[in-house]
Amino acid sequence: MTTSHTLFPLLLPLAAVLALVSVAAAAGAVSTSDFQKITREERNYRQKKVIDVSHKYVPELPAYGSKNGLGNFIRLQTSIKLGDLSNYSFFNLSTHSGTHVDAPGHFNETLFELGYDVVSLDLRTLNGPVLVVDTPRDKNITAEVMRSLNIPRGVKRVLFRTLNTDRRLMHKKEFDSSYTAFTSDGAEYLVQNSDIKLVGVDYLSVAINPKDELTKVHQLLLAPKDIIPVEGLKLDDAVPGVYTIHCLPLRLNHGDGSPARCILFQ
Amino acid sequence: MTTSHTLFPLLLPLAAVLALVSVAAAAGAVSTSDFQKITREERNYRQKKVIDVSHKYVPELPAYGSKNGLGNFIRLQTSIKLGDLSNYSFFNLSTHSGTHVDAPGHFNETLFELGYDVVSLDLRTLNGPVLVVDTPRDKNITAEVMRSLNIPRGVKRVLFRTLNTDRRLMHKKEFDSSYTAFTSDGAEYLVQNSDIKLVGVDYLSVAINPKDELTKVHQLLLAPKDIIPVEGLKLDDAVPGVYTIHCLPLRLNHGDGSPARCILFQ
Repeated sequence: MTTSHTLFPLLLPLAAVLALVSVAAAAGAVSTSDFQKITREERNYRQKKVIDVSHKYVPELPAYGSKNGLGNFIRLQTSIKLGDLSNYSFFNLSTHSGTHVDAPGHFNETLFELGYDVVSLDLRTLNGPVLVVDTPRDKNITAEVMRSLNIPRGVKRVLFRTLNTDRRLMHKKEFDSSYTAFTSDGAEYLVQNSDIKLVGVDYLSVAINPKDELTKVHQLLLAPKDIIPVEGLKLDDAVPGVYTIHCLPLRLNHGDGSPARCILFQ
Repeated sequence: MTTSHTLFPLLLPLAAVLALVSVAAAAGAVSTSDFQKITREERNYRQKKVIDVSHKYVPELPAYGSKNGLGNFIRLQTSIKLGDLSNYSFFNLSTHSGTHVDAPGHFNETLFELGYDVVSLDLRTLNGPVLVVDTPRDKNITAEVMRSLNIPRGVKRVLFRTLNTDRRLMHKKEFDSSYTAFTSDGAEYLVQNSDIKLVGVDYLSVAINPKDELTKVHQLLLAPKDIIPVEGLKLDDAVPGVYTIHCLPLRLNHGDGSPARCILFQ
């Protein structure tokens, strides 16, 4: 009795240490500093506006060169209504449906066979600060327009908001070949006189329509292998300014492109 | 002559103003403060590590309940090698292939018919701070395990790294029904005692395999309509800790789920 009594003051600090250890163990994987980091980041994100710049996949979404739009692309494989356990669907889309990205192999067979598919695209290009600019409504994106926009070196991502947005072309089922996009001299200007690696446009192609220009623009932009055209963006609600973009295509092996979900934080 | 000479001092400030106006016009859409914002943000992103937590879609990727994996899911529709202008493919996937999200309508017909599809999922849940935790290797994610992990209130996103990652189950073509996932009491605990809205797991289902548990876990998690299961994550390279997640499914109208590209910034 006497012994335990005299030991008591010595045991107290030990008990305190043991109590702390057991709290730490009960706290599982989350340290105080981790929790503070999460709380800070959560507050930070809550303050930002988020804008979805991806079009919804619906049968009426326009498809390149077609009068009929995307058509039915999704169907239930199992259905609760029909007695199955769950609703479970299959969908069928082209790699260039709606809001999507192009891979270098889209217009270049050598690059395609070398594996420059959509999986090879750099996540550091697909995520980061982005500039949304308005282009003159009476012109395609020519070298002259690119010069007048005067986008400084160091800007890696630009979304070009054009007449297509005003005309709501992505909201019309029938493909409209009179859309606004890059001309070959505009693409050449971009490659030679800018640091732009993510090139966003608001209709189904980064290149204007005549076949020779369509090919030339794509080849110019895709040849360097580090430029990513993002096509079919929904820029209705994205006024010019600086945002952070996250534009994430599916990792489709051998994909010459892929649908992508793209969002902006302001 | 005399007149113009006397006017000259008056014209000088006007010329200066005109020169400034023309510089501003030449500078296009980018103000100095916008450019500084971009440069700062670019530096900020360069310092972060990026981890791809999405599996590549390949024919060998496992599919729920199947011995044969995903199989061929992509085919060229036009081919440069065959004389076409470009490589252009179609792909066919289930809404629950590889790394993917579940929508509330996946296991609930009422919610499905009310439009709780993958389009309805909140981008604010799909983007933001996330905690990666390791779970005990000898147990499913039960209430007891959830209690022991002791994830504080306020944590909205958690990726659960389990024995599945050690066993490399997502790298094996044949479906393995012995995977680790949530039990119904684990799901119940999560819904009632946590603020977790994004629930990430490292195999094809958030729920353990027996049919009744599979249904019950999904129904528990999906009923509140604001919890998003993210399944089939690639957590091989994601050690426990705090990250920022961007997990972006396609906007598939009526989709009971969708493949998603998910990445972490550290």
